[in-house]
Amino acid sequence: MIYADNAATTQLDIDAFEKMKKFLLNDYGNASQLYSFSRAAKKALKEARITIADCICALPEEIYFTSGGTESDNWAIKGLQTLGDDRATITSKIEHHAVLNACAATEKLGFPVAYLSVDEHGVVLPETLCDVITSKTKLVSIMLANNEIGTIEPVKELAKITHAHGALFHTDAVQAVGHIPIDVNALGVDMLSASGHKFNAPKGVGFLYIRKGVNINPYADGGAQEFGMRAGTENVAAIVAMAVALKKNCANMQETQKKLLRMEAEFIQTLDDAGTDYIRNGFANRMPGNINISIRGANGEMLLHRLDLKGICISTGSACDSVNTQVSHVIEAIGVPDAYAQGTIRVSFGTMNSEDDAKTVAEGIIDILGIR
Amino acid sequence: MIYADNAATTQLDIDAFEKMKKFLLNDYGNASQLYSFSRAAKKALKEARITIADCICALPEEIYFTSGGTESDNWAIKGLQTLGDDRATITSKIEHHAVLNACAATEKLGFPVAYLSVDEHGVVLPETLCDVITSKTKLVSIMLANNEIGTIEPVKELAKITHAHGALFHTDAVQAVGHIPIDVNALGVDMLSASGHKFNAPKGVGFLYIRKGVNINPYADGGAQEFGMRAGTENVAAIVAMAVALKKNCANMQETQKKLLRMEAEFIQTLDDAGTDYIRNGFANRMPGNINISIRGANGEMLLHRLDLKGICISTGSACDSVNTQVSHVIEAIGVPDAYAQGTIRVSFGTMNSEDDAKTVAEGIIDILGIR
Repeated sequence: MIYADNAATTQLDIDAFEKMKKFLLNDYGNASQLYSFSRAAKKALKEARITIADCICALPEEIYFTSGGTESDNWAIKGLQTLGDDRATITSKIEHHAVLNACAATEKLGFPVAYLSVDEHGVVLPETLCDVITSKTKLVSIMLANNEIGTIEPVKELAKITHAHGALFHTDAVQAVGHIPIDVNALGVDMLSASGHKFNAPKGVGFLYIRKGVNINPYADGGAQEFGMRAGTENVAAIVAMAVALKKNCANMQETQKKLLRMEAEFIQTLDDAGTDYIRNGFANRMPGNINISIRGANGEMLLHRLDLKGICISTGSACDSVNTQVSHVIEAIGVPDAYAQGTIRVSFGTMNSEDDAKTVAEGIIDILGIR
Repeated sequence: MIYADNAATTQLDIDAFEKMKKFLLNDYGNASQLYSFSRAAKKALKEARITIADCICALPEEIYFTSGGTESDNWAIKGLQTLGDDRATITSKIEHHAVLNACAATEKLGFPVAYLSVDEHGVVLPETLCDVITSKTKLVSIMLANNEIGTIEPVKELAKITHAHGALFHTDAVQAVGHIPIDVNALGVDMLSASGHKFNAPKGVGFLYIRKGVNINPYADGGAQEFGMRAGTENVAAIVAMAVALKKNCANMQETQKKLLRMEAEFIQTLDDAGTDYIRNGFANRMPGNINISIRGANGEMLLHRLDLKGICISTGSACDSVNTQVSHVIEAIGVPDAYAQGTIRVSFGTMNSEDDAKTVAEGIIDILGIR
């Protein structure tokens, strides 16, 4: 099998698993309890917070563990809504559904939301934000990297504009964390969402970075865990595994990026050599390993199923929810021509893939399309 | 080490771990994806939902997976608040903080909440509910079993009264699921919260039972997971492990109960033989294995630390959050006399304990108290 859907989820890192196992089977004490048996869990939790903070240049007390990216996004968007404040939220049309649907939910409660258009590469242009933002804006939420087309957004400029208008800036960095260098201070973001399973940590764990001093409601009420902001017995095993995976990914980042770019080149070359008529979606500044293409006259879902029969896993439409087969909101927003849009697929390589894999996937597509 | 704090968290069942491992390391595909590699995860998720539903006599489509008991409680309490409805919530003074603080959060938003008193055994008397409930009540949330003193509440009668007034009934069954028989239809509850790690499943996973037809808001917006009610990539490994642990616990329930009652008897006998001056808190109809006692003139926290030095783990105050050392809200609500209240400890035995453990813990307490 060639697994080339790493933007949907990744394989668990084996070192992360081993650390997880220790806290699942041996040091299972409730981290909030007082006896010494819980000390290992408490200590590991503290260390994981430091490790993760270091990876994004944050302070440990700015890292709040959650159950994943969707929870982090929901918290960032909804956590501001009841602070006696009816100012607006601004987001983009190409956000993940966790952001879009959280925004829709706040809209239903009477809080206004504006959805920014993007250019043909999926970039949220700073001037577009400038046109819409006012002193009545409370929050701007723009993703760091798009999950479908990989476009990296100009978050630093967008955050600067946002702050100049007295609003807060959140970024959904679920696709980016562990894959591209992140410095929350250089970016100037106030909140940042991450999901463990996108960077070789287990599913069911993630975090929200909340800059010190940001006033936001707790997401879950109950015990005093996570500085009283996100109650619930700490999922120590998964949190610790997340720290191991993130640290490892960050340490190998440069090398991995080079490897992924070679896979991309191999894939594109193979398609081009066969004379495939396709558009590559997304901005040149994109997530390494992400290849989103729209093939003229093809059907993305058919391609997915036929590749599946060849033992190749890729994606079409939105990654986390492939129930719908219509053209995704992202492909629509960047205006892919009708003749190509239905033939959109996303191939996302990861550390476990090779250049041979890239060639095989491209050849599989060519074969199915009957180009040669 | 003798671990006698099973009401705080439990050791992961080894079969649950093995099943978990399979989905962590091998079948890691995103359960929402379309290719065949995700089929194992999708199938396991479906089967886990059926298994868990069976254990509480619910329908599979009434089980919504969450990140744990706190999330389930927060969802049940907050999920009704924005349905164009300013009717009141009624709860009790001895609920877990996940319920109490979620109620407090809704109160802050202007939704009224009433907190019922309990009798000296921690029982929410049906007549107390009758005195407070009106046609303007939206939700009654009373726990199935108390986490500190183990008292099992008359949920069936309370739910009946609630329905007669046109309100919905939620029960926090975090302490009860996997330990006492539960039939959601016989109980007549509309929602029921559970947490995996209280019944030998991993931390970070739980579920909320929502009776078919109950109108409640989604808890997390995003993808279409959990019937569109709780978005986020499914934590398949933990969910599957939860199903294994719950099924096993339910199959062995009668035998385990007998074992736990023998441990309780041994513990109490040993204390009594030494002439310990204590009050046993809670109702006679309580969670098997739960022993909450208030010892005259003792200090609960001191006892905890001294027992810890003997390699024994027990609890004092509220289980999930032992940061506070003042007398817990439960001990206060049942009116334990001042001379005893500070000396409150909770010993909670589990399947991994023996009668010898029970005797050793009791002897440890006697030794520390210097009774003999």
